Amino acid sequence: MKIVEMRVTPIAMADPPLLNAAGLHAPYALRAVVEVVSEDGITGLGETHGGAAAVANLERARAAVIGRDAFDLGRLWEGVAREFGGEARPVEGGDGATRQAADIPGGVRLGTAARVYGAIEVAILDLIGKALGRPVCDLLGGRVRDAVPFSAYLFYKRAGGGGAGDDARVDRYGEALGPDGIVAQARAMIGEHGFGSIKLKGGVFPPEEEIAAILALREAFGPAVPLRLDPNGAWSVATAIGVGTALAGALEYLEDPVATLPLMAQVRAGLLAAGIELPLGNNTSVVGFGDLAACVQTDATQVVLGDHHYWGGLRAVRELGRVCDTFGLGLSMHSNSHLGISLMAMAHLGAATPHLTYASDTHYPWQDPGDEIVTEGRIRFVDGAVAVPDAPGLGVTLDRDALARGRERYEGCGYTERDDAAEMRRHVDAGWERVVPRW
Amino acid sequence: MKIVEMRVTPIAMADPPLLNAAGLHAPYALRAVVEVVSEDGITGLGETHGGAAAVANLERARAAVIGRDAFDLGRLWEGVAREFGGEARPVEGGDGATRQAADIPGGVRLGTAARVYGAIEVAILDLIGKALGRPVCDLLGGRVRDAVPFSAYLFYKRAGGGGAGDDARVDRYGEALGPDGIVAQARAMIGEHGFGSIKLKGGVFPPEEEIAAILALREAFGPAVPLRLDPNGAWSVATAIGVGTALAGALEYLEDPVATLPLMAQVRAGLLAAGIELPLGNNTSVVGFGDLAACVQTDATQVVLGDHHYWGGLRAVRELGRVCDTFGLGLSMHSNSHLGISLMAMAHLGAATPHLTYASDTHYPWQDPGDEIVTEGRIRFVDGAVAVPDAPGLGVTLDRDALARGRERYEGCGYTERDDAAEMRRHVDAGWERVVPRW
Repeated sequence: MKIVEMRVTPIAMADPPLLNAAGLHAPYALRAVVEVVSEDGITGLGETHGGAAAVANLERARAAVIGRDAFDLGRLWEGVAREFGGEARPVEGGDGATRQAADIPGGVRLGTAARVYGAIEVAILDLIGKALGRPVCDLLGGRVRDAVPFSAYLFYKRAGGGGAGDDARVDRYGEALGPDGIVAQARAMIGEHGFGSIKLKGGVFPPEEEIAAILALREAFGPAVPLRLDPNGAWSVATAIGVGTALAGALEYLEDPVATLPLMAQVRAGLLAAGIELPLGNNTSVVGFGDLAACVQTDATQVVLGDHHYWGGLRAVRELGRVCDTFGLGLSMHSNSHLGISLMAMAHLGAATPHLTYASDTHYPWQDPGDEIVTEGRIRFVDGAVAVPDAPGLGVTLDRDALARGRERYEGCGYTERDDAAEMRRHVDAGWERVVPRW
Repeated sequence: MKIVEMRVTPIAMADPPLLNAAGLHAPYALRAVVEVVSEDGITGLGETHGGAAAVANLERARAAVIGRDAFDLGRLWEGVAREFGGEARPVEGGDGATRQAADIPGGVRLGTAARVYGAIEVAILDLIGKALGRPVCDLLGGRVRDAVPFSAYLFYKRAGGGGAGDDARVDRYGEALGPDGIVAQARAMIGEHGFGSIKLKGGVFPPEEEIAAILALREAFGPAVPLRLDPNGAWSVATAIGVGTALAGALEYLEDPVATLPLMAQVRAGLLAAGIELPLGNNTSVVGFGDLAACVQTDATQVVLGDHHYWGGLRAVRELGRVCDTFGLGLSMHSNSHLGISLMAMAHLGAATPHLTYASDTHYPWQDPGDEIVTEGRIRFVDGAVAVPDAPGLGVTLDRDALARGRERYEGCGYTERDDAAEMRRHVDAGWERVVPRW
């Protein structure tokens, strides 16, 4: 089943003004859609990080894809890895000050080969699934769950919907800049989608304000709804230990309180010394297999957030699950702003990964239904979970008109890279800089 | 693609009088052949450990198999694990004296669920491959090598061929009870199959004799042919450090010098303290994923010998490769006496496992061509490697007449379990007992 064509389409979708430690989401989030076409005319779909650099990297992999048999994925990886020089290794500094905005997921530091391969692998697995009449989860070893749970992903948010001009979107969740707004956002999102757990993206306001927001969520939803807080490495070790101490009973895990593995290990040691067993989640200093040995050796992380978009595809994250199971680590899934192809890929992966121990992140509720690019329309969450279809491949079909609109939006929106700091300077504070740690 | 039938056939094959730390090989080695049949009449093949207990365990899994879709492997594992109570955890004793003959691979302690599932998974992957017209390696992620290297597996050996009575076989390699015999055996086996590396099964004679055998092999074949020595845990820590010191420059790794993980860690530490960087291989105290964390934490092993027959199948060992790569461990493959179905399963697995860092073990040269049960006949080694076919499934077809002969041989041979110690008492020393450590 030879692959005879690969198409990479950059798109933009409306994205509301969400805040994080790196700044502010722009009115558009950028994605890239990968299509691979077999010699018998079957098309497989993938979706990944967008923007000019991501698209250029995908194009660089074209020669490794075209003419290759769809099942020949081991050698496809070798070809992609050769092109990009293998998986990037993380910067390991003890001071936390070396991390910049580019270090966050969606930035450029993460292993390029793993990201490029991951996007193409999904498209090829969708192609194989469609050709065989089998869902992608079956190609990964078979499902162990029929629906994959996701968590409500709350953000501090400025007023306004996503998009601009003709693309301006309704502000579905409203402003949220303190505990009341965050609780209201959670009620709205859970009311709509039924999520059974909640994550708050922090690192935006002084820690005491974010502690208050978490305690307000606990008050509002009670202990049956697990909570997480993720300041994206914005804190010092002392601050992280302080927040962890304050929230020990309220969080299922504290994600990336500090920016590097050595600092994470210090936070863990400090919490344990205080008698606090609060797992630390990680998707900024554990972003590839090369980070795991040091992570385990130093007990720097207890919950890894995998992401097939940058860990090297669906099979790689299933293998990550085995690694986590073997070494007593929990596993969740990380998310960037995304559409339905990525969501379905996460669902098939989650279905076929026995050791997925937490509900996964998803930005999907923040995207506008009008921007979806699959003919099935908006993917539904039922009780916070995505049902894994029996349909061939990922179970979704490309809506070419919607894709064309997404491309037009990309070409007209004026954004070619994600730069949350620039957006922060434009709309909030002209002198804003990302500082790590800020508190 | 529903599975409507499963057949389990116990067979016996001639096996020469090979010596190891557990005793002496009986004239027959026992295997079991698993066939699964789909509703459209396609048959998939697996081969695994034999004897009455293995067959009974496979039969216990029948209810989890029949009626299941062939791709539904995640839930098949869950069903098998439920039946057998999950993967057994190893006994971890610091004294090394608790390990008995049953602890060796082929014995009964290894995780039963993983063994039963592994055999059935191979048969189902062969079935899927045949149904799709794709080789099994493609179902595992695609090949990264077209031929999988194996090593010459030398044994101290009493005179005589395998089998008995009408099944008595020619003694193709002759007696080997000292360095000269071992070198001659190596020359014959390499001359026949072209192996590029050599493993000697030790733990049979006092360590100084086995050191002499290794040095004779080094003298005969030179440094271009890597050597390994495997006494199956027969030594004390002090002896192991002594042998490791004597052979440091001559071995690519020293396998299972002592019987438990804590003792392995002591050997490693002792060698490093003496400035000797000699990797320790392991397939007796690292026999499942549950052993790996302690192994890594204590640096007890540097080369894991995976085996799809007891690690839980082909996908599991590919995942083991990811674990080993992630934690800086080497990976080879362990073997028991086996026929062509198992050899081809190892070949497909080796082809699709990027992180296979050493030539794999195989007992195959010790089996008689007349006992092979695939219509393709004896699998060939070319330059010590097995070519991975493009044919559907494993690339072999069951020879039903040969299978029937193997079954007759099983039913007539009088052996229903492997018991190398009993054989030792019968033929060598009526008072023989396995002692761990012996030296």
